[in-house]
Amino acid sequence: MGYTEVDQKAINTIRLLAVDATFKSNSGHPGAPMGMAPIAHVLWDKFLRFNPKNPDWLNRDRFVLSNGHGCMLQYALLHLFGYALTIDDLKAFRTVDSITPGHPEAHDTPGIEVTTGPLGQGICNAVGLAMAQAHTAATFNKPGFNLVDNYTYCFLGDGCLMEGVSGEASSLAGHLQLGNLICIYDDNHISIDGDTNVAFTEDVAKRYEAYGWHVEVVDNGDHDLEAMEAAIKKCQAVKDKPSIIKLRTTIGFGSLQEGTHGVHGSPLKTDDIKQLKTKFGFNPEESFVVPKEVAELYGRHSSEGAAKEEEWNKLFAQYAEKYPAEHADLTRRLKGELPEGWEKSLPVYSTSDAAIASRKLSETVLSKVQTILPELQGGSADLTGSNLTRWKEAVDFQPPATGLGDYSGRYIRYGVREHGMGAIMNGLAAYGTIIPYGGTFLNFVSYAAGAVRLSALSRVRVIWVATHDSIGLGEDGPTHQPIETLAHFRALPNCMVWRPADGNETSAAYYIALTSKHTPSIIALSRQNLPQLEGSIIEKAIKGGYVLQEVEGAQITLVSTGSEVSIVVDAAKVLLEKHNVKARIVSIPCFEVFDAQSKEYRLSVLPDGVPSLSIEVMSTMGWERYTHEQFGLNRFGASGAYKDVYKKFEFTPEGITKRALLTIDFWKDVPNVRSPINRAFQQLI
Amino acid sequence: MGYTEVDQKAINTIRLLAVDATFKSNSGHPGAPMGMAPIAHVLWDKFLRFNPKNPDWLNRDRFVLSNGHGCMLQYALLHLFGYALTIDDLKAFRTVDSITPGHPEAHDTPGIEVTTGPLGQGICNAVGLAMAQAHTAATFNKPGFNLVDNYTYCFLGDGCLMEGVSGEASSLAGHLQLGNLICIYDDNHISIDGDTNVAFTEDVAKRYEAYGWHVEVVDNGDHDLEAMEAAIKKCQAVKDKPSIIKLRTTIGFGSLQEGTHGVHGSPLKTDDIKQLKTKFGFNPEESFVVPKEVAELYGRHSSEGAAKEEEWNKLFAQYAEKYPAEHADLTRRLKGELPEGWEKSLPVYSTSDAAIASRKLSETVLSKVQTILPELQGGSADLTGSNLTRWKEAVDFQPPATGLGDYSGRYIRYGVREHGMGAIMNGLAAYGTIIPYGGTFLNFVSYAAGAVRLSALSRVRVIWVATHDSIGLGEDGPTHQPIETLAHFRALPNCMVWRPADGNETSAAYYIALTSKHTPSIIALSRQNLPQLEGSIIEKAIKGGYVLQEVEGAQITLVSTGSEVSIVVDAAKVLLEKHNVKARIVSIPCFEVFDAQSKEYRLSVLPDGVPSLSIEVMSTMGWERYTHEQFGLNRFGASGAYKDVYKKFEFTPEGITKRALLTIDFWKDVPNVRSPINRAFQQLI
Repeated sequence: MGYTEVDQKAINTIRLLAVDATFKSNSGHPGAPMGMAPIAHVLWDKFLRFNPKNPDWLNRDRFVLSNGHGCMLQYALLHLFGYALTIDDLKAFRTVDSITPGHPEAHDTPGIEVTTGPLGQGICNAVGLAMAQAHTAATFNKPGFNLVDNYTYCFLGDGCLMEGVSGEASSLAGHLQLGNLICIYDDNHISIDGDTNVAFTEDVAKRYEAYGWHVEVVDNGDHDLEAMEAAIKKCQAVKDKPSIIKLRTTIGFGSLQEGTHGVHGSPLKTDDIKQLKTKFGFNPEESFVVPKEVAELYGRHSSEGAAKEEEWNKLFAQYAEKYPAEHADLTRRLKGELPEGWEKSLPVYSTSDAAIASRKLSETVLSKVQTILPELQGGSADLTGSNLTRWKEAVDFQPPATGLGDYSGRYIRYGVREHGMGAIMNGLAAYGTIIPYGGTFLNFVSYAAGAVRLSALSRVRVIWVATHDSIGLGEDGPTHQPIETLAHFRALPNCMVWRPADGNETSAAYYIALTSKHTPSIIALSRQNLPQLEGSIIEKAIKGGYVLQEVEGAQITLVSTGSEVSIVVDAAKVLLEKHNVKARIVSIPCFEVFDAQSKEYRLSVLPDGVPSLSIEVMSTMGWERYTHEQFGLNRFGASGAYKDVYKKFEFTPEGITKRALLTIDFWKDVPNVRSPINRAFQQLI
Repeated sequence: MGYTEVDQKAINTIRLLAVDATFKSNSGHPGAPMGMAPIAHVLWDKFLRFNPKNPDWLNRDRFVLSNGHGCMLQYALLHLFGYALTIDDLKAFRTVDSITPGHPEAHDTPGIEVTTGPLGQGICNAVGLAMAQAHTAATFNKPGFNLVDNYTYCFLGDGCLMEGVSGEASSLAGHLQLGNLICIYDDNHISIDGDTNVAFTEDVAKRYEAYGWHVEVVDNGDHDLEAMEAAIKKCQAVKDKPSIIKLRTTIGFGSLQEGTHGVHGSPLKTDDIKQLKTKFGFNPEESFVVPKEVAELYGRHSSEGAAKEEEWNKLFAQYAEKYPAEHADLTRRLKGELPEGWEKSLPVYSTSDAAIASRKLSETVLSKVQTILPELQGGSADLTGSNLTRWKEAVDFQPPATGLGDYSGRYIRYGVREHGMGAIMNGLAAYGTIIPYGGTFLNFVSYAAGAVRLSALSRVRVIWVATHDSIGLGEDGPTHQPIETLAHFRALPNCMVWRPADGNETSAAYYIALTSKHTPSIIALSRQNLPQLEGSIIEKAIKGGYVLQEVEGAQITLVSTGSEVSIVVDAAKVLLEKHNVKARIVSIPCFEVFDAQSKEYRLSVLPDGVPSLSIEVMSTMGWERYTHEQFGLNRFGASGAYKDVYKKFEFTPEGITKRALLTIDFWKDVPNVRSPINRAFQQLI
């Protein structure tokens, strides 16, 4: 309380930095920063806990700008509050290789928690961050050691609320009673198409009440700083519900175009900027100005933040003495490193072991490694019994009041909310103490494409347990049988798509997924049983691709993944026995990882001089990169028992044999056929 | 009212057909059909208007099973009510090539309106069907000619309500005041993970009220047929809001496992079936039984339905006399055919025309063809000014009460709801009188992947106007720049992905998109200006790929799409002038359409003997199918002015030249290099 002219000056400084940067770059969104500067000021100056000199301090409050197009607001705040983001960085807004790109990206800019911009994602990330806080607190806090008690604050706009993904995560957040989450809805009545009354006339407050949230309304978000402060305090006091403050603001406040969509996504005009600076008491001839009193007001946060962290560091040192095991565990987790020797818990199989569905093999991995990896926190989008994502003794992550579990629980019931799950996992991973995994059918990872893309772009360790990975799911039919899904995610940069063929390959997939700190993984798993293969060993499979069966004088290389590999093994026998044809067999469970191997190695797997044929029961797209010919399914599948479906599409030893012979015949006239591994030039990466 | 034992018998017949079919196929979901049989009986026997002998009758009520896993309910109803679906079809449930697949598919099974199963989609399709009804009524109904006044009914479950996509469409449906839409929520408290209280504890009724819906609650959905009937009547009486009936049911009613998730997705056990049949007064030794009185009860609908249609046909004949133009228009639309000569309205360009962004070229196409194609109804997910999807004189599709438009309006304000838009468009297309298109950024078509997949699978004519199609969007940066998107949708069967290079190619894309009755299209369009190319003509471009520039004695074929083609043209000049290298230039705006051309034609475009290089500023995945070498972007983009971004990644004449020379050098030792068009065998399609 007791706001003065300096506060107003500070608010207008934020506004003008956004105006100047968007003007300079001739691109960007000044409207939201200008409208939200007052609430940003109140939140950051009065509430937010952080140390700008160490953006990684565990117990900082998390701030998420879900309406990421307003990122000049966040960049201005980071600069003003002492983060390593200079005025020159602001001037470089939206230029190539700056740390102030068009939307906030987590990996390069200090103080950005999660990558936002694609609407609806940030609020889901915030839910994940809040869940992670609740879980970490329940796991590590001890009497007298409130190690982790931060809030997560999230700004969001109309666009975020219209996106269904935000509804998914909000419904779950209400169920989970996340009292540590406070969202602020920029209710400015404007989206790109103009007044929101053209498409968005629902009662947002009522909807959030229906989700089980606490709702505050502040009518004058342009001026009433006291009301904003009071609302945030009230939300903090509500411990068993997430909160949302519906804050009525004026987009582009102060501009001649304030309150219109004209100020949403385009820089202000020169005259408008002049009148604005004059009105705000700034020199209209100057740009990127931070008045001294504003620099001082905000400058104190550097020392105050450092002091807060220092205090916490002392507490953490005492914690180390009293709870050395917990301290060591938490410290290790924060580094993103796994306990030494953890990989010994990965199951190893031999050919004498039974045929097992790879979803079941995945369950075994999870059950084994979870005891040694307490940071593993998983769940399923309401397919637990199908995805086999839950180990037997798991405790559910639930509000204690439900009697269904507690916050220390490591199994999350996501409900039928794939996209929300994906975006929440990005938040869980971003918190720093958790490795999240989530299950659904492979086909429905596509529902979460927007979130998976951001996992890859923001370089987080998130694992999708994607079962029922092909027409092999059988009876559910084409609506559930993936065809394009692997091609889609294989084409996504920095995303590992695994399709293991047996137990050892499944262990290999998890080994790489768990040890890749900055890359998400999708592990595609079969519904049907798969035999343990001769030649499959973890050390080979972790290379992403390897020779399963070598043979002297091979006439063809058969290349496959997942459930088709064992059929290919049978086909090779038919080729030899019936046609006297020798076939090498290669398994490539993960393109992304195989591509990262040396050329020499890749050529040893897919050598010159031997024509090759890939076999995979889905789109052949992408396989031309590895093989000369492709046998796949460039059409939708069929509903029926899986063996009947495989037969219909000729994915049988006979069907493969036929195509192998055609391949050999087709390439017989080409001398020393070149391996597709050979390329004229390297790709940019 | 006045329900008797025959009604109960009928209900139990439906239940037992679902039980017998799932048992026989040893697969499927008996629980929902058993729980929803009572409401299905009330709705179909007392309310639903249809002629089973003509499932295409325009003014039929639409029935959508959004919880599509319960499809044995729908198949049983279709059989019992006289559709061309026999008891043998029920016995063939979930077997290969049956018309009773694991989830309802619209194209093969008579009486199935839309393809459902992927949760949340059906209710959005229902919103689209209801919008289409409102639009068609506003367009064609005349005083005394209530040609179109059908309802759309939709069954849905907890899963549909948890999916965000349903929230998107429901919010819009409330805004649009769709009084012709009545949804019935199977509130059975069970999803796959068990009791819904583990993840779904929101107040659904309150949420739908917040969306602006009318809500009815029926507490006893197992027995209280009168209450169900009364609730539907009340909903019908509410003309300015969509309605939802929250119907408390018992999943698997009658089974020993009723009310548990044990009965959700697995057939009942033999003993359970015996006790059930005995309890229901059926012979426990018999299966697939339809008692005579039930057959009679339902059998009357065949004659009654035929009579209703006959009456309507008479009305329509009178309409033809009084409103011949409207009659002709509606008749034509129902055939899915376009007016003769419509294609003359497509703009044609020459090289002297200015450089124009292809999103702007798309706007010109839409503006021109809309006058001759009144069935074109489009919109945008809140990016109208960026997608350029609205022609100047367009009237918005809005409830008249808003004063913002009316239901005859052809422009839809979807709000920031890409997935909802996609699923709604599937419903709009399924109604039969509309060709829907929708705009968003290409990157955010991925949000709608679930719906796009169903457009392709259910073979509907839906057009995505996907602007800002690459790193060429510039400043918005990697969060908005597609890399994997084209590969994803190119891998999707029966989906045309267009990326036109100039005005004539844009016209070609729309020509094929509009004339392909059974295939959706995604038209990827640039933000930046593109010159009109020498060699680009509509007649060639409609083949999906063609030779833009031929040259005698070519040493390389440069293959490209969209905004890169003009850069390739410049690169070819550099190659000739600086390196004395002759390059052919090929444009492939659409893989799917090019693939459908004769091999002879494709080989004329990509001939043997010439090494080829593709150039496209996104994932190279899939290009190996057409070219020997690929220049693309297998990493995320960058935020900056588009020319700077293109330069950073070397998509310049010089960058292309360098790679062209490397390609020629790399392939020079291979005699008569084979075109990738040559394959050892044909793919299954």
